[in-house]
Amino acid sequence: MRNIKLTIEYDGTNYCGWQTQTGYSRKPSIQETVEKTLRKILNEKIKIIGSGRTDAGVHARAQAANFRTESRIPLKNLKRALNSVLPKDITIKSAQEAALGFHSRFDVKFKTYRYIILNSGHPDPFLRNYAYFYPFNVDVRRMKKESRSLLGRHNFAAFQASGSRVKDTVRTVKEIKIRQGKHLIYIDITADGFLYNMARNIVGTLLEAGRGKFAAFTAPARGLFLLDVRY
Amino acid sequence: MRNIKLTIEYDGTNYCGWQTQTGYSRKPSIQETVEKTLRKILNEKIKIIGSGRTDAGVHARAQAANFRTESRIPLKNLKRALNSVLPKDITIKSAQEAALGFHSRFDVKFKTYRYIILNSGHPDPFLRNYAYFYPFNVDVRRMKKESRSLLGRHNFAAFQASGSRVKDTVRTVKEIKIRQGKHLIYIDITADGFLYNMARNIVGTLLEAGRGKFAAFTAPARGLFLLDVRY
Repeated sequence: MRNIKLTIEYDGTNYCGWQTQTGYSRKPSIQETVEKTLRKILNEKIKIIGSGRTDAGVHARAQAANFRTESRIPLKNLKRALNSVLPKDITIKSAQEAALGFHSRFDVKFKTYRYIILNSGHPDPFLRNYAYFYPFNVDVRRMKKESRSLLGRHNFAAFQASGSRVKDTVRTVKEIKIRQGKHLIYIDITADGFLYNMARNIVGTLLEAGRGKFAAFTAPARGLFLLDVRY
Repeated sequence: MRNIKLTIEYDGTNYCGWQTQTGYSRKPSIQETVEKTLRKILNEKIKIIGSGRTDAGVHARAQAANFRTESRIPLKNLKRALNSVLPKDITIKSAQEAALGFHSRFDVKFKTYRYIILNSGHPDPFLRNYAYFYPFNVDVRRMKKESRSLLGRHNFAAFQASGSRVKDTVRTVKEIKIRQGKHLIYIDITADGFLYNMARNIVGTLLEAGRGKFAAFTAPARGLFLLDVRY
């Protein structure tokens, strides 16, 4: 028995998210797409475990996942086969042997999400699925100041999606980095875990603070990237 | 009567190209999409003239086009209305008054096309429609050397698509700039005009030269961007 860890990059635009949704979406999930491809290549029933869900339209630069297999396929061949069979909006960046006990979800120490904001006078057709077009004047220093109040161990219940039923809503936000380019603002949030919609609600709060407002909103999925998962 | 010049940015992935193709494609053209939107906004039959065609899958950072109208709509309102009605993969970057005699195609002095190559070990899902994945070792100095032989006034008949029936195949290539980033190679070609497939054939020739080969091929449409049109 082997336990193989995959690092997966994907454009979430055409998927219902990492996990298969029951019923309402006709789009496939990333997880089922990778599983089906693995079954085809390994000729074995495969179940993959991701580091966590990503929503419909959310992207990943490096999602982590693992699966167990009886196959003796070399990792290099597995990676090559996956990349040649998978649709072009999903890429396997690496395939590595992991300890048999390794679990992609339970063993996460920190995750980093990046949110990209297009802060300019007109939309960019090439970023329509990869950034949130927010044409208002924002004061990035104010955003940075506001972000400091979120650092550390807090109850983030107010930042989760309404209707969530997670009991333990305490999370530790380790770092929030805000960078401003010519037209783009990048917000990188590192935490030991994220409640449902927490990253997008933090972004909505920071953007409104940057406009001098104290409202908040859930920033749209398309600007969000799972950047890194650390174990 | 006014003559209005538009600068148009588009992601060509979901279009049959700038110009409407007769018969075989079910995808709309950029031109007809912009024309239909103008007709809706101005309530007038509009015919737009582009600086030239771009192929299916080719993108534009700044395509130029002009149209005549009786409308007195302020340019700012026109731009805003166009951007709110057009699909998100087409954006109007500017709308300007032009001299009545201005013609987007006949008056072109120079055009610049950019070609983007992803030169790395694995494909990038976010660049699948915006770069050509070319995983081979290439020597960029060789490409630069080869590019110098293309500069100046030459008969580029060998660089046009087979079956083309253009009579005058002499063009002047003013500049070829090649830049190498970590994983991307950018080739910017400026000429007084481009034969059909000329930019993509120049790129194919340069890439093969970079591998020490003397074959050539037509690089795929998805890596090509019309970057600039000068009058």
